[in-house]
Amino acid sequence: MTGTTEAPQENLSAVLYKKGDLRLVNLPIPEPKDDEVLLRMGSVGICGSDVAFWVKGCLGGDGLFPVVEPLVMGHEAAGTVLKVGANVKNLQPGDRVAIEPGVGCRYCDHCKVGRYNLCPDEMFCATPPNSGNISRYYTHPADFCFKLPDHVSLEEGALCEPLAVGVKTTRRAELKVGQTVFITGAGPIGLINMLVAKYLGASTVIMSDVRADRLEFAKELGADHTITVDGTYDSEKLAKEVVQALGAQANVSIECSGAEISIRAAIRATKSGGKVVLVGYTPPEVTVPLVDAATREVDIRGVFRYENCYPEALAIVASGKVDVKKLITHNYTIEETLEAFETARTGAGGAIKVMIHC
Amino acid sequence: MTGTTEAPQENLSAVLYKKGDLRLVNLPIPEPKDDEVLLRMGSVGICGSDVAFWVKGCLGGDGLFPVVEPLVMGHEAAGTVLKVGANVKNLQPGDRVAIEPGVGCRYCDHCKVGRYNLCPDEMFCATPPNSGNISRYYTHPADFCFKLPDHVSLEEGALCEPLAVGVKTTRRAELKVGQTVFITGAGPIGLINMLVAKYLGASTVIMSDVRADRLEFAKELGADHTITVDGTYDSEKLAKEVVQALGAQANVSIECSGAEISIRAAIRATKSGGKVVLVGYTPPEVTVPLVDAATREVDIRGVFRYENCYPEALAIVASGKVDVKKLITHNYTIEETLEAFETARTGAGGAIKVMIHC
Amino acid sequence: MTGTTEAPQENLSAVLYKKGDLRLVNLPIPEPKDDEVLLRMGSVGICGSDVAFWVKGCLGGDGLFPVVEPLVMGHEAAGTVLKVGANVKNLQPGDRVAIEPGVGCRYCDHCKVGRYNLCPDEMFCATPPNSGNISRYYTHPADFCFKLPDHVSLEEGALCEPLAVGVKTTRRAELKVGQTVFITGAGPIGLINMLVAKYLGASTVIMSDVRADRLEFAKELGADHTITVDGTYDSEKLAKEVVQALGAQANVSIECSGAEISIRAAIRATKSGGKVVLVGYTPPEVTVPLVDAATREVDIRGVFRYENCYPEALAIVASGKVDVKKLITHNYTIEETLEAFETARTGAGGAIKVMIHC
Amino acid sequence: MTGTTEAPQENLSAVLYKKGDLRLVNLPIPEPKDDEVLLRMGSVGICGSDVAFWVKGCLGGDGLFPVVEPLVMGHEAAGTVLKVGANVKNLQPGDRVAIEPGVGCRYCDHCKVGRYNLCPDEMFCATPPNSGNISRYYTHPADFCFKLPDHVSLEEGALCEPLAVGVKTTRRAELKVGQTVFITGAGPIGLINMLVAKYLGASTVIMSDVRADRLEFAKELGADHTITVDGTYDSEKLAKEVVQALGAQANVSIECSGAEISIRAAIRATKSGGKVVLVGYTPPEVTVPLVDAATREVDIRGVFRYENCYPEALAIVASGKVDVKKLITHNYTIEETLEAFETARTGAGGAIKVMIHC
Repeated sequence: MTGTTEAPQENLSAVLYKKGDLRLVNLPIPEPKDDEVLLRMGSVGICGSDVAFWVKGCLGGDGLFPVVEPLVMGHEAAGTVLKVGANVKNLQPGDRVAIEPGVGCRYCDHCKVGRYNLCPDEMFCATPPNSGNISRYYTHPADFCFKLPDHVSLEEGALCEPLAVGVKTTRRAELKVGQTVFITGAGPIGLINMLVAKYLGASTVIMSDVRADRLEFAKELGADHTITVDGTYDSEKLAKEVVQALGAQANVSIECSGAEISIRAAIRATKSGGKVVLVGYTPPEVTVPLVDAATREVDIRGVFRYENCYPEALAIVASGKVDVKKLITHNYTIEETLEAFETARTGAGGAIKVMIHC
Repeated sequence: MTGTTEAPQENLSAVLYKKGDLRLVNLPIPEPKDDEVLLRMGSVGICGSDVAFWVKGCLGGDGLFPVVEPLVMGHEAAGTVLKVGANVKNLQPGDRVAIEPGVGCRYCDHCKVGRYNLCPDEMFCATPPNSGNISRYYTHPADFCFKLPDHVSLEEGALCEPLAVGVKTTRRAELKVGQTVFITGAGPIGLINMLVAKYLGASTVIMSDVRADRLEFAKELGADHTITVDGTYDSEKLAKEVVQALGAQANVSIECSGAEISIRAAIRATKSGGKVVLVGYTPPEVTVPLVDAATREVDIRGVFRYENCYPEALAIVASGKVDVKKLITHNYTIEETLEAFETARTGAGGAIKVMIHC
Repeated sequence: MTGTTEAPQENLSAVLYKKGDLRLVNLPIPEPKDDEVLLRMGSVGICGSDVAFWVKGCLGGDGLFPVVEPLVMGHEAAGTVLKVGANVKNLQPGDRVAIEPGVGCRYCDHCKVGRYNLCPDEMFCATPPNSGNISRYYTHPADFCFKLPDHVSLEEGALCEPLAVGVKTTRRAELKVGQTVFITGAGPIGLINMLVAKYLGASTVIMSDVRADRLEFAKELGADHTITVDGTYDSEKLAKEVVQALGAQANVSIECSGAEISIRAAIRATKSGGKVVLVGYTPPEVTVPLVDAATREVDIRGVFRYENCYPEALAIVASGKVDVKKLITHNYTIEETLEAFETARTGAGGAIKVMIHC
Repeated sequence: MTGTTEAPQENLSAVLYKKGDLRLVNLPIPEPKDDEVLLRMGSVGICGSDVAFWVKGCLGGDGLFPVVEPLVMGHEAAGTVLKVGANVKNLQPGDRVAIEPGVGCRYCDHCKVGRYNLCPDEMFCATPPNSGNISRYYTHPADFCFKLPDHVSLEEGALCEPLAVGVKTTRRAELKVGQTVFITGAGPIGLINMLVAKYLGASTVIMSDVRADRLEFAKELGADHTITVDGTYDSEKLAKEVVQALGAQANVSIECSGAEISIRAAIRATKSGGKVVLVGYTPPEVTVPLVDAATREVDIRGVFRYENCYPEALAIVASGKVDVKKLITHNYTIEETLEAFETARTGAGGAIKVMIHC
């Protein structure tokens, strides 16, 4: 991290120049376009993808979304409206908002049917070539900013982003009240999915991970059962323990670990007619018992970002019934961004969600 | 095949005793229960599964559904009502009907929501331990018998069975008018799926197979494009040719070959947000680019038999717009059953669908 | 009510002989059929329909479901299994169960697709010609009995019945987290719908009724806003107040009053693309602004009983997050049945749900 | 109609100044914006709404969409691309296209979920305050222009508009292969719905109208049964005849007449669990047996324009299986626009669809 001398009127931002080269620099304060708002940024969470861009220079192991030019990091964000563009009707200065980071082109076939997450030209914060919002000031389309009720804080607003993933996942799972859920991986996204599943009435959630401390935390947050996966496990053993704990296969399995063993176990541990939802990024190729899924009509559905999920995510936060703030284990100022990334990278101190306050 | 002396009033039936041991024997004429009808069997098609039981003694290579006691073969069938049980209201003697071979227990969770194909106790004709209907006489639940209009023949009635697979597949694919479809495998089920997809308004159907003669026949029946897969193909090459022929990825891919290369190609060749439907029985394990499907939200859905598809299958036949009879390449009497199975096994003479007339 | 001398081993039951003629009589203890269980009845709630049969001799003002022969009353019930039929696998003696009162024929088109509530031959407890279960002993199909967890009481089990209506209603409404709901009518069904809607994440529920005391109770239970409708109201005024209170039209309106003014207001007060769900029994003919609903694609959907809703209803009770017991305002023994009906009829003492303990 | 002297380079257009005052005037040739194309207009059909604006100065009897300033008429249109805006990728000059006339704001909640037809700011051609396209030249958003295959004519392209209504209607009806359909009203929209329903596999379509000649034409086009409604009919008689003709209630009823008797009959004549779709504009208030629909779960759904239906409409035309051109009974040049409107207004000469060629 390069030291910076900030003039208060300037726009301090966390810019990734290339793999491993993250700096705080002053950028110009942008002007909102007619459909945009200018925001004074509040809280921004660090996501695994931010860390991946920093550490690997791309999103996945196979070079997905390479960083090719300087990029402001951050996409789990909330801020306060400073200025509104000429056509903006839904917001006014002073409004505090959660920022949905992915905005479709509004013109392609996917956008026109409401699946803008599949838009090939989707602008997504902090995914090359689009900049994110670990900045003092940032502009964003007004219709992708959602006004926070007074009792919802900016950091809760920032957490709407991972919550939107949970909303999307449970929607794809067609999760119903009383159903049982098997979640593989107890990182932030696994935990969020557990919280959303419980909020939506899942009767029992069982989670697996290789890290016992994360599963411990999952139990504190509400997971009903946990399985610590060690070297003695293969997918059959994992699936068998899930079935034993639930008394039957799960209605829904949610894969958040990215591990082949987990996908395999998810298929085996899901009821006929159930759903396996893939959220984690797995290796490019996996070997799986697909015929078992097919002949039992266990559907396999992926989650790529989300679309039209922010209103529900915000409603969940606003309900006060899900204490998402417990996920925030560490807080930093924007000046401490590099330290924050380091904490997120190592997971030191039991880090789950690391939050930067701008 | 053991020779038999048939007394005309008796119930000549094609019974599989064990792997390789198929005989024509006289069984008692059954009595219909209160909810059943007694049928004078008409036409019964031979399915790949019938041949598998005969040749391998089970359904799949991995010992699925082993034949453990003598079993009447046949489940693609139509017949004429001779007698109705006490509670039967929907049929009367003389009615000609298509016979839906799979009947759920009517009591389990799957049956109660209408997915009786997933019922663990589903009675399915000619799948152990349930007998089928290559017989002179046969009883069946009346509500799983569908009255044929006068202009629909018994052999068309028998073809409702594979047509029901096509109805189910396109339903799972959520196929819409104008969409493009990639079908792997040009055997009877691949061909039926092509016919149903075209009937439902698919704009373009492209099919692949290793056998050029089957693809030739597919073109005659209405396939728009075909790809003959030889040793030079891997899944990438196959997918690429599909995309080239369609000008884009397909909206829907339907896997009917059971080959790993086909599943892989189906994933690659399907549009973001599209569907891959698995109909063929693949090896227990396959290696696939699942993350590509997941991050593009290409859903993977299996087809296991069908539920509530016979009315639509029959309506398709009755419409006269799909000439399913072209699929019938060979006809035999029940006395010639062994010869019929031999033709179905070898595919000699370009055999697609072999029909037995009882 | 005729006095009775009960022999303890006999089956005391509340039998409606004809309009106004409800008696306690001893009936034989029935034997369970192969798929049935014999139950020692526990709690049975009195529903508006029970009262209607008693007071009017039929369900609706237009003579729907006339009582033509003696009929045991009661269908909101729970009991304990005493004996199981030969084929019963899901239950054993001693299990405490909630009893789903409507059982389809299992053979018709509606039953086969899982909509058994529309089965023309549906057996529904205490709806002519089928007897109900205000009895000491009662038999019922085992697959329509749902085992209660240990922490759920029999009276909570009985309340699964109105809860199932709430599950069905919100399902038909496609209610989503964060949506706003307008409910007309604050009787037991209106209140249950409010509780279920809140449980499912509705952000705001507004209720209207002509009785201020019921709305007071609704607020205690969790309603966010209430409107007491008096003679000065027409549907436009009512709709306007709903919109004012919510700041916009509701996403979903649920009609539980049976009044024309409410249906009219529900249409006007619902957002374009929203849903109006009709639960209350309205007059045979109503005058409504249907074109307003049609041109704004506000769908109008009725609720007739429920299908496959008991598992969710039971999960809601078992979650402990909905205090349905608050709805029970009065308790009686089976011997006090006539008094219980009288209380339910008059609503004296703020009666909402009157419960009989057998 | 005022005479005009057209300079060939100018943009002759049919402009409605106020009720009854339709003139041909020369307007400037517009420039396409970045996301638009400039079109040389080809064929434009006259719709009932065009006639209503001309005759009544508004859309409905109740003053809906009043004409307040000069407005170019026409919205069922197709043309040829002359010029493309800077951002247009899907089209190039020379492409012949069908023009979807309704374009959402792309920013509101309805647009973001893909229901842009409900967008309160939807731009819809020839509905105040937006101009239509009975012009020589016209600009339109490129993503709402659909390229015609070579074998589809411009007049078939123009007919995609009413076909899109048919696609939307059958989609709302969830029409399935083999179902029966009752359509009230045999004007252009009733006929189009019949054609689309038959194309999608409806087994039987029965139509009612007061005009025997229209029903005669309907039969020629493919209707299976027709009922000529005269003064002796009430809704019960009409419904009864539908049920008699079909042998049961219809799976789906489509109301295209705007008459109360038809809506009433549609409810009565639809199966439990079926759908009544309202397409016609009815009086502001109707008296209907809503409780009959509600207790049989017959859903009532409106159609307001369409969204994402053009690709299917175009695929239907391109399939060659629906001879939509038969609907075109009269053809005029743009100079004869007033005469064309007069023909459409009176329906003289059996006019169904009147087409203007620009």
